[in-house]
Amino acid sequence: MNTRNVIIIGSGPAGFTAAIYAARANLQPVVIAGFMKGGQSGGQLMTTTDVGNFPGFPEGIEGPALMNRIRKQALNYDTEVFDKDVVKVDFSETPFKIWTEDEEMSAKTVIICTGASAKRFHTEAENRFWNKGISACATCDGALPLFRNKPIVVIGGGDTAMEEALYLSRFGSQIILVHRREQFRASNIMLQHVKNNKKIILKTPYVLEDTMGSHFLERVKLKNVSTKQKEEVPANGLFLAIGHQPNTDIFKGQIDLEETDYIKTDGHTRTNVPGVFAAGDCVDHVYRQAITAAGMGCMAALQAQKHLQNNN
Amino acid sequence: MNTRNVIIIGSGPAGFTAAIYAARANLQPVVIAGFMKGGQSGGQLMTTTDVGNFPGFPEGIEGPALMNRIRKQALNYDTEVFDKDVVKVDFSETPFKIWTEDEEMSAKTVIICTGASAKRFHTEAENRFWNKGISACATCDGALPLFRNKPIVVIGGGDTAMEEALYLSRFGSQIILVHRREQFRASNIMLQHVKNNKKIILKTPYVLEDTMGSHFLERVKLKNVSTKQKEEVPANGLFLAIGHQPNTDIFKGQIDLEETDYIKTDGHTRTNVPGVFAAGDCVDHVYRQAITAAGMGCMAALQAQKHLQNNN
Repeated sequence: MNTRNVIIIGSGPAGFTAAIYAARANLQPVVIAGFMKGGQSGGQLMTTTDVGNFPGFPEGIEGPALMNRIRKQALNYDTEVFDKDVVKVDFSETPFKIWTEDEEMSAKTVIICTGASAKRFHTEAENRFWNKGISACATCDGALPLFRNKPIVVIGGGDTAMEEALYLSRFGSQIILVHRREQFRASNIMLQHVKNNKKIILKTPYVLEDTMGSHFLERVKLKNVSTKQKEEVPANGLFLAIGHQPNTDIFKGQIDLEETDYIKTDGHTRTNVPGVFAAGDCVDHVYRQAITAAGMGCMAALQAQKHLQNNN
Repeated sequence: MNTRNVIIIGSGPAGFTAAIYAARANLQPVVIAGFMKGGQSGGQLMTTTDVGNFPGFPEGIEGPALMNRIRKQALNYDTEVFDKDVVKVDFSETPFKIWTEDEEMSAKTVIICTGASAKRFHTEAENRFWNKGISACATCDGALPLFRNKPIVVIGGGDTAMEEALYLSRFGSQIILVHRREQFRASNIMLQHVKNNKKIILKTPYVLEDTMGSHFLERVKLKNVSTKQKEEVPANGLFLAIGHQPNTDIFKGQIDLEETDYIKTDGHTRTNVPGVFAAGDCVDHVYRQAITAAGMGCMAALQAQKHLQNNN
């Protein structure tokens, strides 16, 4: 079996930026692109319409177009891509072992860039206007003209939901923060900021019942969990802030994870297993941006290169 | 005096990515772009010819073109740019004060992105073939066809010089590592890797005397510091690895710096002064890439936004 220098698992901005750097360092990286549990090859950008905040594209760029450009760039150097899923790994000894459905591969170093998936309800009400007013990322989509001075509903009860509501209050005419329980999980300080914000209304205990509109979202129907009463509110935006789940299932028991399943690193992409690195949204639950993921992918490739240099 | 939400000092990938994110968060950032001691507006990309490793540009892009695109993107949102130098800052109380030659400005938060400058000799021998075979960054330029299977000279005695020599050994036919002293500052392990590499020759105590070639660099003249004897060696590449100097002079006494003058942060762009953030090469002496700087600029803007949210 041909042991590779670097196998990169995942194909978002972190994975393919790692590939660009590894390929340019003559490491002939392999990208196993297909794996993204609950996601897809190319990562979360593949379901993002207009990306305005990736530096270098003054007029914005469609998420899939950006991802295809980064992938093409890696292929322009010496990168091999397998559109397969990783089903199992063994990092207990070197070379590390990685299995796809039909193949066993081995590598001196591994870079994990499997990303995270925004939690969704996967109801028909949500699917109907997904990317047509419904989003799971305020930082990505909040600044769109679609939401300027329009009413927006945010769903969630943690700090992320508070942050999203505060962030969106810069754009929307009114923000209705909907949570299914009376009590919020959010920290007191964040909740206080939300309560001090005149644009934000708290609505508990409510859940999403339905969504309405012609082409884009126009109204949502909410249901009071206690009284079972339903009501409709105008909403041009609906932001889900019910959390993200890192795609790290197959690494359990192989490397150290946080309690929240994010991969633990030392801030320089190194996991607790020397030679195994991690970058992007499978590590980062704070920024979760394409540009930060790409930066970490670069770091991981440079660290992998250094590791190979010191251990060959 | 109109107190700004965010003043960004510096105009490289970190600074303008911070501006894009701050502007999209409706913070109306100000970029003071002119400051770059020993450098120039736009940072080190402005003197980089072909950038092959910034994700999103499969065919590569010229450094200044990339920087202009990122700057234009910030201006497409609500960003104000002053092409001036910062001459003094006072971070001892809020709002923070910043002086240009002719103006005093104040801000609730500051993001420092003043970058670093590769140390150079600034001799005529060096200037003659700068960017025509002479470079200060192997990661940026090492993969250029110019250097494939050609002899390369590296100058320096520290770990960076060892890393550059090892990195370049993947491309060049032979690497001559030139150092002015018999002893290297590099760590033993790095020096050992260099000595184990059959492509690398150590040449001490030598200094650069002259450079020769028609359009591109072809040969260098070296001088033995002890014997004063001179000799010519063929070299299509000459890489300076004599260190970088962060552009942080005006921040001395205002925020904590490392002994090496790099700005100390907590890994999340926060300096020891709450509300003052730092990103890019004025912080990072490990990766020093445009994409990592851009990622950190994004982080700094999101941290500044959070700080404003919690302190307004």
